[in-house]
Amino acid sequence: MKTYLECIPCFFKQALEASKLSGANRKMQKKILDEIALNIPKFPLTYSPPQMARIINGTIRRITGKNDPYAKIKRESNSLALSVYTRLKKKVVRSRDRLLTAVELAIAGNIIDYGVKNTLNVQEELKRILDKEDKAIRKEDRSIFNYKSFHSALKRSKTILYLADNAGEVVFDRILIEEIKEMHKDKNIIYAVKEKPVINDALREDAVSAGIGQNAIIISSGVDAPGTVLSLCSKEFLKIFKHADMIISKGQGNFEALSDCERPIFFLFMAKCPVIAKDVKCGLGDVILLYKNKRIN
Amino acid sequence: MKTYLECIPCFFKQALEASKLSGANRKMQKKILDEIALNIPKFPLTYSPPQMARIINGTIRRITGKNDPYAKIKRESNSLALSVYTRLKKKVVRSRDRLLTAVELAIAGNIIDYGVKNTLNVQEELKRILDKEDKAIRKEDRSIFNYKSFHSALKRSKTILYLADNAGEVVFDRILIEEIKEMHKDKNIIYAVKEKPVINDALREDAVSAGIGQNAIIISSGVDAPGTVLSLCSKEFLKIFKHADMIISKGQGNFEALSDCERPIFFLFMAKCPVIAKDVKCGLGDVILLYKNKRIN
Repeated sequence: MKTYLECIPCFFKQALEASKLSGANRKMQKKILDEIALNIPKFPLTYSPPQMARIINGTIRRITGKNDPYAKIKRESNSLALSVYTRLKKKVVRSRDRLLTAVELAIAGNIIDYGVKNTLNVQEELKRILDKEDKAIRKEDRSIFNYKSFHSALKRSKTILYLADNAGEVVFDRILIEEIKEMHKDKNIIYAVKEKPVINDALREDAVSAGIGQNAIIISSGVDAPGTVLSLCSKEFLKIFKHADMIISKGQGNFEALSDCERPIFFLFMAKCPVIAKDVKCGLGDVILLYKNKRIN
Repeated sequence: MKTYLECIPCFFKQALEASKLSGANRKMQKKILDEIALNIPKFPLTYSPPQMARIINGTIRRITGKNDPYAKIKRESNSLALSVYTRLKKKVVRSRDRLLTAVELAIAGNIIDYGVKNTLNVQEELKRILDKEDKAIRKEDRSIFNYKSFHSALKRSKTILYLADNAGEVVFDRILIEEIKEMHKDKNIIYAVKEKPVINDALREDAVSAGIGQNAIIISSGVDAPGTVLSLCSKEFLKIFKHADMIISKGQGNFEALSDCERPIFFLFMAKCPVIAKDVKCGLGDVILLYKNKRIN
């Protein structure tokens, strides 16, 4: 997805938030915003938002000297999500269609996204997800939900590449990965995280602490953008990307980076901003399972 | 009020909205945002947000050649607000404390603000204001409400300067002005609008069409910023500003421009953005009647 002009205000918002988290004082925050502002005319809108966000986060890192401002937040998100793991699992076990519930939960976990929300009460969001009243995701909120294709693709695929999104959310991914493994023991699942810190995107340590390693091979995409930008990926990753039988992509950032890609991909995310909702043609806050296959659609 | 760094994303949002309303195509919109971006490092944060917004709106006007992109919206807001005038009036007449109700309505009318909200459904907002369930503004939403001081200042003042904010909102101001005149026939009320178009700020024609002229003298402040920035005001206006016995200032823009001013002022507005809410120390969406008097507080 190309960057819309509507993304520009959001870049500044996100930059300000990350600057504060990096401990920058007001003067330094201003310096960061000024530098980003001077770069705006140089940004080609053909870049996807994660490509722009990567450059912005690089600027913040250089000026503040802080490598991973979201480190504490990521640890907290992981531990909060792990604390509800058993309850999430129960939800799945007790449901009529375990895979469907696991898919829905994996998407619900995508609410833990500091790139879009800037500030976020993870505890509150988790409570909402677990709330009994909220048990079933309303059908009208699943405006795009290619579950049948997802289900049958799973059956026929041997190697599944699963692109991680954020810390905390990784625990919800574990639920889905366990469900896939429960149904099909013979699947090889490869779970790809980011190479370097960017916003609250999951790194290897987050995937490990969430327990993903029990059912999947954890690799890095080689990327330090908040989305799997192929031009930035490592050769090893690109080989897996090219040959995987099925690709599951989590989150807005990965959708933004890969929506125009040639490979067929299942995008699982919540449409958290009006720009995405408009691009995908869905409602704001919708739970999306979108199968993009250039050979078909 | 100085400009906070948190205002910067909003400048871009507002600029994009105004560019679209001016009929700019995507390329022109990008040109506008690029030019604003290049100016960000030159903006001193000691400027108030309306001073910055004025420069931004000047850029949009110059690039698009459109003098008053909000003209149609302003006309519609006026006519929608006028269509509920009788119902607003009834609310006042039937209430226990007519002045209080008129003050509350005048503040409620401040919801018609394209500078803050970018997009807005005026019809829906008016419905909400008129909704029977919504009759009384909850006390907890009036966190800062210096009504007693307002009431007694009215009594002892002969000349009252009333600083207008937005089109549409002017009809709500008329309700309050009529109530003041009903109580105190001898008061001279001067109603000051902006000199030139800026966002949806009220101009002379808006005040006239709202019927303000029946109870007040309509003047211009000489300003083309979305707030009464004193350094931009006409000499005639400043004379009135200096000598008025009481100043009533409507809206966020006027608060931002005048909050550090030496003159005692009654600020009536809704706290529509987190930056203002933080500055004033109130909740987001609160109904504010704030008396600022440097001699006292």
